[in-house]
Amino acid sequence: MKEYICAMKKFYADDFRLGILGGGQLGRMFIQAAVNYDVHISILDPSPNAPCAPYAHEFVTGDFASFDDVYRFGKGKDVVTIEIEHVNVEALEKLQQEGVKVYPDPKILRVVKDKGLQKQFYAQHQIPTAPFYLVDSKQEIERFASDFPLMQKMRTGGYDGKGVQALRHASDIETAFEVPSVLEKMVDFQKEIAILIARNESGETKTFPVVEMEFNAEANLVEFLFSPANIDATIEAQAESIAKKLVAALDFVGLLAIEFFVTQTGEVLVNEIAPRPHNSGHHTIEACRTSQYEQHLRAILNLPLGDTSLVQPGVMINLLGEQGFAGNVHYENLEEAMATSGVYVHLYGKAETKPFRKMGHITVVNLQLEEAKEIARKMQKMVRVISSS
Amino acid sequence: MKEYICAMKKFYADDFRLGILGGGQLGRMFIQAAVNYDVHISILDPSPNAPCAPYAHEFVTGDFASFDDVYRFGKGKDVVTIEIEHVNVEALEKLQQEGVKVYPDPKILRVVKDKGLQKQFYAQHQIPTAPFYLVDSKQEIERFASDFPLMQKMRTGGYDGKGVQALRHASDIETAFEVPSVLEKMVDFQKEIAILIARNESGETKTFPVVEMEFNAEANLVEFLFSPANIDATIEAQAESIAKKLVAALDFVGLLAIEFFVTQTGEVLVNEIAPRPHNSGHHTIEACRTSQYEQHLRAILNLPLGDTSLVQPGVMINLLGEQGFAGNVHYENLEEAMATSGVYVHLYGKAETKPFRKMGHITVVNLQLEEAKEIARKMQKMVRVISSS
Repeated sequence: MKEYICAMKKFYADDFRLGILGGGQLGRMFIQAAVNYDVHISILDPSPNAPCAPYAHEFVTGDFASFDDVYRFGKGKDVVTIEIEHVNVEALEKLQQEGVKVYPDPKILRVVKDKGLQKQFYAQHQIPTAPFYLVDSKQEIERFASDFPLMQKMRTGGYDGKGVQALRHASDIETAFEVPSVLEKMVDFQKEIAILIARNESGETKTFPVVEMEFNAEANLVEFLFSPANIDATIEAQAESIAKKLVAALDFVGLLAIEFFVTQTGEVLVNEIAPRPHNSGHHTIEACRTSQYEQHLRAILNLPLGDTSLVQPGVMINLLGEQGFAGNVHYENLEEAMATSGVYVHLYGKAETKPFRKMGHITVVNLQLEEAKEIARKMQKMVRVISSS
Repeated sequence: MKEYICAMKKFYADDFRLGILGGGQLGRMFIQAAVNYDVHISILDPSPNAPCAPYAHEFVTGDFASFDDVYRFGKGKDVVTIEIEHVNVEALEKLQQEGVKVYPDPKILRVVKDKGLQKQFYAQHQIPTAPFYLVDSKQEIERFASDFPLMQKMRTGGYDGKGVQALRHASDIETAFEVPSVLEKMVDFQKEIAILIARNESGETKTFPVVEMEFNAEANLVEFLFSPANIDATIEAQAESIAKKLVAALDFVGLLAIEFFVTQTGEVLVNEIAPRPHNSGHHTIEACRTSQYEQHLRAILNLPLGDTSLVQPGVMINLLGEQGFAGNVHYENLEEAMATSGVYVHLYGKAETKPFRKMGHITVVNLQLEEAKEIARKMQKMVRVISSS
C-alpha cells in the first residue's frame, strides 16, 4: 500500500516508518500521542530498559552517537527525528542525502549541539542574547577575569544543568572546565521564560503560549513551570517575534523550544534552544488544545499544525529522585496526589532512582492559575521519589 | 521489589502484572492511559495484528473464550480485567479462587454475557427496564405474537447491533433467530442516553456526566454521541440513581457503562450494560478531567477515583468503514479534519477496512455544545474510511 501526500507516504500506511533517536521520557510521551494516528515508530537507544522500550513498534539497542548504529537504524525509514541532540550528525546527513527525511535538519543539530556555534548563530542573525566569548582552555579564561562574574558553559556535552558553572572570582578559574566553552555575561534577569514553536515542511508556523520557569538552585534544574506566564503583552510579543525569526533563520522543521532571560529592564534574551519536545512543554498535554508531542509529530510529517491555545492554566513540577536515595524506585504519597482534582501524574518507567534523576512529572490544571500553583507546591512537598530497598 | 497497598502490590512495582482479555481499541486506549502510571500490561487476543499488539508489554496470541488459554494467561497475574465480555468465565473463576484479582468479578460477567440473566437481574433488583419474555426457540415466539411489536435479542453472542431484530408482524417469525433470546417490549423512547460509573474495591463510586446518543438506523450502531446530554435534571438524577443502585446490587468493581431509554413520559429504563470502558465514553479522553480508561485503571487497582467533571462539552463520531469498500484502509480528508481546532482523531490501527467496521473515532470539543455538534456533522460527511486498493 503506497499513499503519498506532498511526496510523503500517508503516516498510517502499512509501510510508513518513523525512526526516533533516543528512547527516554520525551520519546515515550511522543509515542503516547502518536498512537492516535497509528504511526509505526522505531526507537534507537543504548539501554534496553529505556522508557520507550515497551511501546515502540521496533526497539533497536544501539548508540545514537555512533555513525554505524544511526545509519543502519535510519536506512529505509521515511522520516527520522530525535529526542536528544547528542546524536551522530554525519550519519543523519548521509541518510538525508539518500532520501530519508531528517527533522530537525542535521545542519541545525550541528549548531545546537555546540553552544559556541549557537551563540555565533544568534550574533549573525541579530537574535538578542547575552554577550559572550569563546575559549578553548582554562588558561584562556584568565584574559577575561576583569569581566567576571561570567557563566562558563561547555560548548558540547552539557545537559540538565551539567556542564555549566559560575565564575565569580579569579580563584574560580582553578575549578573551571578544561574544555572549549562559552563565557557568557551573567544576566541580571527578573525571570526565565520559554516558548515552543512548531513549523512544518509547508512553512506553517505556530507558537504555544509562553511559560514561566522557576529553578531549583541546588540541582540547577527546572522544578516548577507555569503557563500563562506572568508577563506583560510586550514581553510575550518579543518572545514570539524572536521565535519566528529563529525558525525562519534556521529554516527549521519540527518543534523548537526556546528558553529566554527577561532582564530587569524588560529585554528578552535567548538563553538556549532545543530542537525537540522539551521539559518546558510537558504541561501542554493537559493544558493546551494540542500537546507539544502531537505538534512535533504534525510538524515532521508535514501535517496541519494543531491549535495551541490554553484550555486552562497549567503548572508542571518535575518528580526528581530525592537526595540520599538510590535503587528501586518508590513513589511516596502518589495515591494522595491522584485523589486531587486537576492533578495529572506521569511516571517515566525508570526502575531505578538516583538523586535529581527525572523520574516523572505532575501537571496541575485549574481555571485559577494561583490555585494550580498552590496545589503544585503542595504536591512537591508531598510526593517524594525515594527507593524501597 | 515488593510493595503492598491494601494487600495489593504497588502498580508501578517491577513485578506487578496486569492482564487484559481482548486487545482491541478499548484496550489500546486503556494502555495509552496506563503509560502514565507505568503499569505492566499483558494482552490476550486471537489476532497478532490486534490494535493493542504494538503497545503491550506482553502480547499473547490466544482465544479468550478458551479455558486453557485464559487460565494459562491469567496465572501469576496480580489483576486480570477485560475489554470484551465474551470470555471464558470458568477460567476466571479458577484464577480468582487461586488469588488473582479479577475485575469485573466473573459472576458479574455470567450475568452480563447473557441478556436473559441481565433482564432477570434487573427484575429481581427493581432496576427499571422494559418488560420482557424469555424464549428458547422460534416456535415459542408464536405465543407472544399478540404482543408484537417486540425486539428479539439473542441471549448470548450479539454485539454492535448484531443479534438484535424487530418482530413487527406474524410473518417476521419466519426470519426470527432460532436461539434462546429475550423478547422485549418495544420502548417508545424520546432519546437514548448512557452513563458511566466506576467503583473501586474500597467502595468509592463516581459517575460521569450523562451522554446522549444518536443511532445510525441502517448500521444499528451509535454514530453520534454528545455530553452534556440535553435532558433535565430529574432525568440525569434518575440515571445516576439507577447506576448507583446497579453497582451496589452487583457489588461491582471496575467501570460500568449503562445505556438507557428515556420514554416519552420521562421514565428512564435500562437497555443494556457493559462492565468495561465503552464506545459511549470515548469523548471523556478530551472532554473530562479523567478519561473512562484511566478511571477503569484506577478502579481495578483500588486507587482513588479521578474527577469526572466535564472540562468542555464533547461530541464523538465513530469512524466506520464505508459500505462498498474492503481492504487496505485509506482515510479521506483526515488532514482537513486535523486542521480544525478542537478536533481529536483516534485511529485504532486496523489495517483492513470493511463496511461498518469501527476503524477509529473523532471527538470534537468546544465551549459551545451546538458548535461542537455542527463541526462533528461536518467531520462525519468529510472524513471517509475507504480502501486504497
